[in-house]
Amino acid sequence: MKHPENDKAYKGLVVNNGVENLPQVNPFATFRRKKVLLPAEEYVEGILKGDITKLSQAVTLVESNLPSDQIVAQKVIELCLPYAGNSIRLGITGVPGAGKSTFIEALGTELCHANKKLAVLAIDPSSERSKGSILGDKTRMNELSTTQNAFIRPSPSAGSLGGVARKTRETIILCEAAGYDTIIVETVGVGQSETAAHSMVDFFLLLQVTGTGDELQGIKRGIMEMADGIAINKCDGSNVEKAQAAKVSFKNALALFPPTESGWKPYAETCSAKDKTGILNVWKMVEDYIAFTKANGFFDYRRNQQAKYWMYETINSSLLNGFYQNPEMEQLIQTYEQQVLNNKISSFIAAHQLIDAYTKNIK
Amino acid sequence: MKHPENDKAYKGLVVNNGVENLPQVNPFATFRRKKVLLPAEEYVEGILKGDITKLSQAVTLVESNLPSDQIVAQKVIELCLPYAGNSIRLGITGVPGAGKSTFIEALGTELCHANKKLAVLAIDPSSERSKGSILGDKTRMNELSTTQNAFIRPSPSAGSLGGVARKTRETIILCEAAGYDTIIVETVGVGQSETAAHSMVDFFLLLQVTGTGDELQGIKRGIMEMADGIAINKCDGSNVEKAQAAKVSFKNALALFPPTESGWKPYAETCSAKDKTGILNVWKMVEDYIAFTKANGFFDYRRNQQAKYWMYETINSSLLNGFYQNPEMEQLIQTYEQQVLNNKISSFIAAHQLIDAYTKNIK
Repeated sequence: MKHPENDKAYKGLVVNNGVENLPQVNPFATFRRKKVLLPAEEYVEGILKGDITKLSQAVTLVESNLPSDQIVAQKVIELCLPYAGNSIRLGITGVPGAGKSTFIEALGTELCHANKKLAVLAIDPSSERSKGSILGDKTRMNELSTTQNAFIRPSPSAGSLGGVARKTRETIILCEAAGYDTIIVETVGVGQSETAAHSMVDFFLLLQVTGTGDELQGIKRGIMEMADGIAINKCDGSNVEKAQAAKVSFKNALALFPPTESGWKPYAETCSAKDKTGILNVWKMVEDYIAFTKANGFFDYRRNQQAKYWMYETINSSLLNGFYQNPEMEQLIQTYEQQVLNNKISSFIAAHQLIDAYTKNIK
Repeated sequence: MKHPENDKAYKGLVVNNGVENLPQVNPFATFRRKKVLLPAEEYVEGILKGDITKLSQAVTLVESNLPSDQIVAQKVIELCLPYAGNSIRLGITGVPGAGKSTFIEALGTELCHANKKLAVLAIDPSSERSKGSILGDKTRMNELSTTQNAFIRPSPSAGSLGGVARKTRETIILCEAAGYDTIIVETVGVGQSETAAHSMVDFFLLLQVTGTGDELQGIKRGIMEMADGIAINKCDGSNVEKAQAAKVSFKNALALFPPTESGWKPYAETCSAKDKTGILNVWKMVEDYIAFTKANGFFDYRRNQQAKYWMYETINSSLLNGFYQNPEMEQLIQTYEQQVLNNKISSFIAAHQLIDAYTKNIK
């Protein structure tokens, strides 16, 4: 296996404008890279002009794990930062089958007709583009993907949640600098990607379907309390009555919830992404929320908290990875964990002995 | 200011059996210590015999921040571990005013009459014993505190949540070794102490009151989804109808929640701690849950997960404290945080530069 840095194909540097078709950058694989690395300023210049090709290329750098790409990517982000922030960031989650793609297609088409510039991103740590998972298959968003004003980008490919989320958050900055005024971040409704998405959007929408009996089957506990609003999709055909009953149920349930930090009272709307009905009611909910939180200051407060959150989150995972990914610690951690599970040693004594081993002998 | 180790009063070592009245151990204060430090084995021998004085003294060591006390405390815990675990651990939370003390008094008295041995502990990082906060004022539990079978211990005094929670968790081990078969851990229903309590109990009970309009006013979001059951207190006098209506509301709301990991379906019971009605229905809910989770294996699974959780939690906070409590880092962190808040630098770049500073120059 050759390192790509030493690969002649890598150094050959052929320009390829079909950026989306580039292979995933994997520093441990031999691959042919068909793109020159431009100076950061050139990407930024293109991005600020709204050049989709340059934007795509820069996002590819953000997603790359190659150190040389990352240096340019970080520079691009830094230069874009002053132009970022002027968008509505909308997170959308829901279990597979809730109709997220159809909903985003319907909502996105409406927004583009209203002259908004829309970027659709995703967080799915389990995704591999080739496997047609979340947003991976653009054909699921036929209409939207051919719309001039829409920029659709699949989830950064498989990796740690932290890594995937960081890439998505940085991509938001680039999209905003490129003039996209509405950013949708889609997640899969399972695992921890919701927390990550929630921590980078202004409004977090839970997309529900009804008619299955167990209304929230499959949605992780805690997600409902994270939602700023609920859209009950598939309110069409024989399902209308059930969807409207679900709306009432959710209304009652949400009223029992403790008040939100923003002061906003989350509620539910019905819609049918298939029939394109009710979509604008959902969007009105988002706009009302934005107006409400801009008026009471929570909008900026949340954005600031999120920026802080990501700084500390990155510091913390870096500190913890140093310990857990240290090859000399791995076996020792397993040994102690077994002793804790067998009640041979208290959790706290085990922890302190492991930390001692780390600081004294290894670090 | 003298260090206690060098304080003659400290070395004077006068025995005092009124352990509860000892001043809080603070390694930075000058104080008089009136107690000899026994060998760990002596505490353990007393604990295993159910000697309340020795148990109290050992708990005081667990709560102490003095390194010399901690060495003995950790040894005591280690020796008690093989005798621990045989209890029902019940967490109780609810906003101030929900009637937690009265409820615990009523429930505890019933349990003691049924020949159970009950320990009541608390997690309240904001508490100072002298200020009569949570459980600090034993007069709030008049009847229970004079019952032979009950051991009541206020929250370890003010400190970090992690520290307070660790002390409570270690105290559970000592109480179990002393033969207490029912452990109640009380928390205040605000802040993060619920997560800590939740991670050390078998059943987490949310104590609610009704009749205030906003049923969950004051309870933090997320707590309702953590609860294995809800007790609606103050179902007495003119409040009965409202309490029963609330029971139905909660039933409907809980049915909308995603299924729990245990497979148990949380529900609500009404009770009146003042009139001592419905208390045993709440207890039956706990017993049913225990039987249910013991049958399907979740009981042991949760205990194991908790032991692991506390090992990793302790490792993580120790690693993070090394960074955040490093005096050379504090100013630098503030500076970077400001730059992030002012959009001068991305969260990720700030984090990496801080980690670089820590690993290269300081650590």
